[in-house]
Amino acid sequence: MNEIITLAHGSGGETTHRLLSEEIAVLYASEAQWDDAAVLAAHERIAVTTDSFVVSPLEFPGGDIGKLAATGTINDLVVRGARPAYMTVGLIIEEGLPLSVLRTVLRSLRSTCDEAGAAVVAGDTKVVERGSGDGLFINTTGIGVISAAEPPGAGRVAPQDQVIVSGYLGDHGVAILAAREDLPLQTPIESDCAPLHDLAHCMLQAGGEGVHAMRDPTRGGLAAVLNEIAEYAGVGMNVDAQAIPVRPQVMATSEILGLDPLHLANEGKLVAFCSSQSAPKVLQAARRHPLGRHSTIIGEVTPGPETRVTVRTSLGTTRVLSMPAGELLPRIC
Amino acid sequence: MNEIITLAHGSGGETTHRLLSEEIAVLYASEAQWDDAAVLAAHERIAVTTDSFVVSPLEFPGGDIGKLAATGTINDLVVRGARPAYMTVGLIIEEGLPLSVLRTVLRSLRSTCDEAGAAVVAGDTKVVERGSGDGLFINTTGIGVISAAEPPGAGRVAPQDQVIVSGYLGDHGVAILAAREDLPLQTPIESDCAPLHDLAHCMLQAGGEGVHAMRDPTRGGLAAVLNEIAEYAGVGMNVDAQAIPVRPQVMATSEILGLDPLHLANEGKLVAFCSSQSAPKVLQAARRHPLGRHSTIIGEVTPGPETRVTVRTSLGTTRVLSMPAGELLPRIC
Repeated sequence: MNEIITLAHGSGGETTHRLLSEEIAVLYASEAQWDDAAVLAAHERIAVTTDSFVVSPLEFPGGDIGKLAATGTINDLVVRGARPAYMTVGLIIEEGLPLSVLRTVLRSLRSTCDEAGAAVVAGDTKVVERGSGDGLFINTTGIGVISAAEPPGAGRVAPQDQVIVSGYLGDHGVAILAAREDLPLQTPIESDCAPLHDLAHCMLQAGGEGVHAMRDPTRGGLAAVLNEIAEYAGVGMNVDAQAIPVRPQVMATSEILGLDPLHLANEGKLVAFCSSQSAPKVLQAARRHPLGRHSTIIGEVTPGPETRVTVRTSLGTTRVLSMPAGELLPRIC
Repeated sequence: MNEIITLAHGSGGETTHRLLSEEIAVLYASEAQWDDAAVLAAHERIAVTTDSFVVSPLEFPGGDIGKLAATGTINDLVVRGARPAYMTVGLIIEEGLPLSVLRTVLRSLRSTCDEAGAAVVAGDTKVVERGSGDGLFINTTGIGVISAAEPPGAGRVAPQDQVIVSGYLGDHGVAILAAREDLPLQTPIESDCAPLHDLAHCMLQAGGEGVHAMRDPTRGGLAAVLNEIAEYAGVGMNVDAQAIPVRPQVMATSEILGLDPLHLANEGKLVAFCSSQSAPKVLQAARRHPLGRHSTIIGEVTPGPETRVTVRTSLGTTRVLSMPAGELLPRIC
């Protein structure tokens, strides 16, 4: 097989067939899938989510597009209280992609799925001509199994809920930006890209139905999550700037670039909205987990109808934290 | 809102939010989805399939990428005997796409899903900068419900099975090629793009468990389907060239371009492998359906272990019908 992807790899003929059986097959635990749809045992309630990944560059400190494609979808399932069970993988490959890159990415994707207990059950591979894509785009769709009677959901967020963040914010955004722009950072920042099935499970075990909602603050960052939930649930939010964990290097890099770390993407963090009764237990459970060691309560939900998100600054003043507007960082995930 | 897509539409901030609520929302039957994953009632067994669509041009005689993205995934479910229930939609939009095109495509996608009874339950929208994509790529993942005890599957194909094709082959391939190359066809050919849930249902009702397998011969055409099934089931196939329905204009265009109509993509045809007992009933049911009027038996499955697909030509000779090799037609679906 040639060592780069050619249009023939996307033809649906023999070359495609070889690509699937020799390379893409690494995604599947069982034999290659020959039928047009996989047949699965399901359960009473399932959670479904889909995400396309167009991150640039394809490999970055702390991960690559394969790890990200698994992580992003796994995390969208776990924030609904679902156990990741199945995954589909759609690849759009640009002609000329080195096969070595494809191999690395597929292996990352598979090993991240394995880690979270999700089996890849269906896939699709397309090739577009040079200049009509950018290396590799990946779509993953995840199916999870829900066992809780009342799974966490944005609609359950209520005044007095405590807002917990599971660690440092903005690492993924800065890591991608630094890799893309070749920024000379004194201390290199790695993406926080990680599947959160186990952290979420521990937090839900500790807080039970007191965990009203969870989100992973990806594109648009914490600011987008807080504003979206406030709008949906018809509540306000008030958070404390000094309580929000941001690494000094991330803060410094953001300041230089004129970015707000609360707008930056994260790929390994949870934001949980918990009843005030359950919050201390959820926090304790999160801190015991390796991915939640730096968890902290950053603020609380306030009564509506004013669905404003405000931040208490270190100067004691209060500012509105608005939804990020404009271009921000394209192709961050 | 600007009338073209900008990078800000993919930022995850306010502009994204507006795009989702003002444009993408048309996909959803219920309110816009605010949580990261949709929670669904499932059933004992579900079928799952995923497909990315990169067709060029985005609009063509007989359809557009939206109709195709719904149809392709619906048809992959129905060939497994599944009733389409849920759909996810992942959009990768190139900066500069006119919003009018996006609107048309989303409406086609939604109405095709409605026709087949599939609800769009989750979605994702990414924007890539100009030159890193080509207008619009769409991933759809479909979830279907299986009720038959033994759904059709490639592994059930056996010697003596009759091979039924549900109508004229090659229409989609020629329609796309003509639209792309601006070929001056005397009689314009339309894509056969159509959701086959109802046709498949009628055929399965008529043939029951005698319908051993079904496939939709998309990329790679009939030749790819016959070769894949032969290899998987360890059988041979023998088909009759004169029995295979191909429109004269499609045959003529293929000959001029040096293409084999049996390698061309179809987006509204079924190939069914049926026990010899059930085949006449399945054929009759197919012919009664508007999308199966030209159904016909084109050949039969022969014993393995020689997994060769052969065609009896009009001259009485026999040739091997091999898996399509090489480039064929890129971006046909």
